[in-house]
Amino acid sequence: MILGIDHVGVITRDLDAAGAGMELLDLKRDYEGVVDSYGVACQFWRHDGDNVAIELVAPARADAAVHGQLTRQGPGLHHVAFQVDDIDAELATLRRRGAVLVDTAPCPGGRPGLRVAFIHLGPATGLLVELVDYGS
Amino acid sequence: MILGIDHVGVITRDLDAAGAGMELLDLKRDYEGVVDSYGVACQFWRHDGDNVAIELVAPARADAAVHGQLTRQGPGLHHVAFQVDDIDAELATLRRRGAVLVDTAPCPGGRPGLRVAFIHLGPATGLLVELVDYGS
Repeated sequence: MILGIDHVGVITRDLDAAGAGMELLDLKRDYEGVVDSYGVACQFWRHDGDNVAIELVAPARADAAVHGQLTRQGPGLHHVAFQVDDIDAELATLRRRGAVLVDTAPCPGGRPGLRVAFIHLGPATGLLVELVDYGS
Repeated sequence: MILGIDHVGVITRDLDAAGAGMELLDLKRDYEGVVDSYGVACQFWRHDGDNVAIELVAPARADAAVHGQLTRQGPGLHHVAFQVDDIDAELATLRRRGAVLVDTAPCPGGRPGLRVAFIHLGPATGLLVELVDYGS
């Protein structure tokens, strides 16, 4: 089951300069790390008490998946992430409904126990969607 | 004061086809309307109990502001909206901090009493931010 929106991903080439933009909006950084499976460094920013975050994502390797959009469109919004309670079941459901699975199986996320997967909603929205399962 | 994330805006040329993508993710439509000040039609979709929505935005007039991005990049993520308690005070604060105001004064939103304004966070994030004041 999809539980709700978890975060909104924004790609950047410069985490420090992008973080200054977050601070301008009074967001506070509450996590940073590296996601090896996607070759990116990330930071999560949120307002006190808000359970939805902005994730800043920057390439950490030459083969990082975000290079394509950074080159084509520059920094900007990249994906919307939804928290799910069972990522394997949700991927199977979404495949059955015709979603385009970018990841056919969940990948390790940036935190212990976290598993994530990306799907694409198709041309009408152009929307890249991440599913996030925080585990038990 | 910025209270938290209110919605994420996605631009599309086809609200019906984009809505089918929202249904694929089990989101439910809870509002639709026209925002005259920006020349767009919009729909808000959310999961039961989630206070953050996905807004689908489609041009309703030839001079709609979203035509530019639709032509350059196609459908996709467009803006992140934050709820504020006093949009006039917040615009003044953000101007003082160096944000680029797209709207120098609030515009009427799609619902009675609602006032909104857009700012741009600059090149590091490429982020278009909407402030939303639901009024008293």
